Amino acid sequence: MLITFEGPEGSGKTTQIKALAEHLCAQGRDVLTTREPGGTPIGDQVRAVLLTNLENTDMHPRTEILLFLAARAQLVEQVIRPAAQAGKVVICDRYADSTLAYQGYGHGADRDLLRRLLDFATGGLWPDLTLLLDLDPEEGLKRKKLGGEWNRLDAYTLAFHQRVRAGYLELAARDPARWVVVDAARPAEQVQAEIRRAVDARLAHAGH
Amino acid sequence: MLITFEGPEGSGKTTQIKALAEHLCAQGRDVLTTREPGGTPIGDQVRAVLLTNLENTDMHPRTEILLFLAARAQLVEQVIRPAAQAGKVVICDRYADSTLAYQGYGHGADRDLLRRLLDFATGGLWPDLTLLLDLDPEEGLKRKKLGGEWNRLDAYTLAFHQRVRAGYLELAARDPARWVVVDAARPAEQVQAEIRRAVDARLAHAGH
Repeated sequence: MLITFEGPEGSGKTTQIKALAEHLCAQGRDVLTTREPGGTPIGDQVRAVLLTNLENTDMHPRTEILLFLAARAQLVEQVIRPAAQAGKVVICDRYADSTLAYQGYGHGADRDLLRRLLDFATGGLWPDLTLLLDLDPEEGLKRKKLGGEWNRLDAYTLAFHQRVRAGYLELAARDPARWVVVDAARPAEQVQAEIRRAVDARLAHAGH
Repeated sequence: MLITFEGPEGSGKTTQIKALAEHLCAQGRDVLTTREPGGTPIGDQVRAVLLTNLENTDMHPRTEILLFLAARAQLVEQVIRPAAQAGKVVICDRYADSTLAYQGYGHGADRDLLRRLLDFATGGLWPDLTLLLDLDPEEGLKRKKLGGEWNRLDAYTLAFHQRVRAGYLELAARDPARWVVVDAARPAEQVQAEIRRAVDARLAHAGH
């Protein structure tokens, strides 16, 4: 069982995943959580090229996509697939749909091509359940401002994040059997309660 | 003008490229030679993940392909395309066809998919001229043995290299306008003479 969380920064993915993992552990389930990029020794080296090395300012967008995909390919084969095959519930903070939303809908990259790249990188492993923590980008902006970040957000990036949100909602609408859209503007406990209902129902349906 | 050299290890690519670059420089041309992976600061970091870090023994084949593609994407956009647009003759020691030959024909990866991955990574930049230094794998083995290497070559890897060779020849046969097959079993001077004839003819044809 592979469960992924998607949605913008500021939508509470990290908090919600932690609370969901506690809930599932309390049910006696074996739970593994991952975060991209990284999660393997090779993935961590790629993460350093992508994020940590601040001298890499001239990275081409296609290089960036391929490095994210390389880290994900390694994470899938070394961690996610073995854990899922061993009967664990694997929860990922972002997965392949982030590439479709940000690079495809946000930056306008060819989505059919991205899908084939993602099929290749993941070896065709797509989530059983994807929880979209949906939030208006302006609300996410407000939350981030309270935390003292996002001062660089300008009109362009707000439009970008609006395209990303619309993209996520389109992906969810096209595959309702996999996606559950959760209104992340509500208090965290209400959001968690809805997430637990969706996950418990899916696990029961899958016979777990 | 983008010229690529393909062929097995031991076929003399490095030597032939050096001699060709000298020939073109003597004609007053501006020549740039590159070698994969690497060739950019970001590409060198990826090269370290791919080749230098000997602890990365558990790298998945798809991770490896994506890292090669990431290094190539950066090399194309930061070095090859700007140089070609500035009128230079760019000579690459291996390029996209190596992926088709080794991963596609050699390891059996889906070649149509690889082609799309390569189109993405290179931004559609394919060579104007590709010189295949063709050599029987057993002859390459003999040359390598003289150099004290390839002791690990066994029946499996010989079969692999035979598939790679057949793949290169098939690629060349399908696109004779781009490929020139050079018999690399002959003395280096004869090989170089044929390479120079092919390159000079192509440059004259392109009006350079």
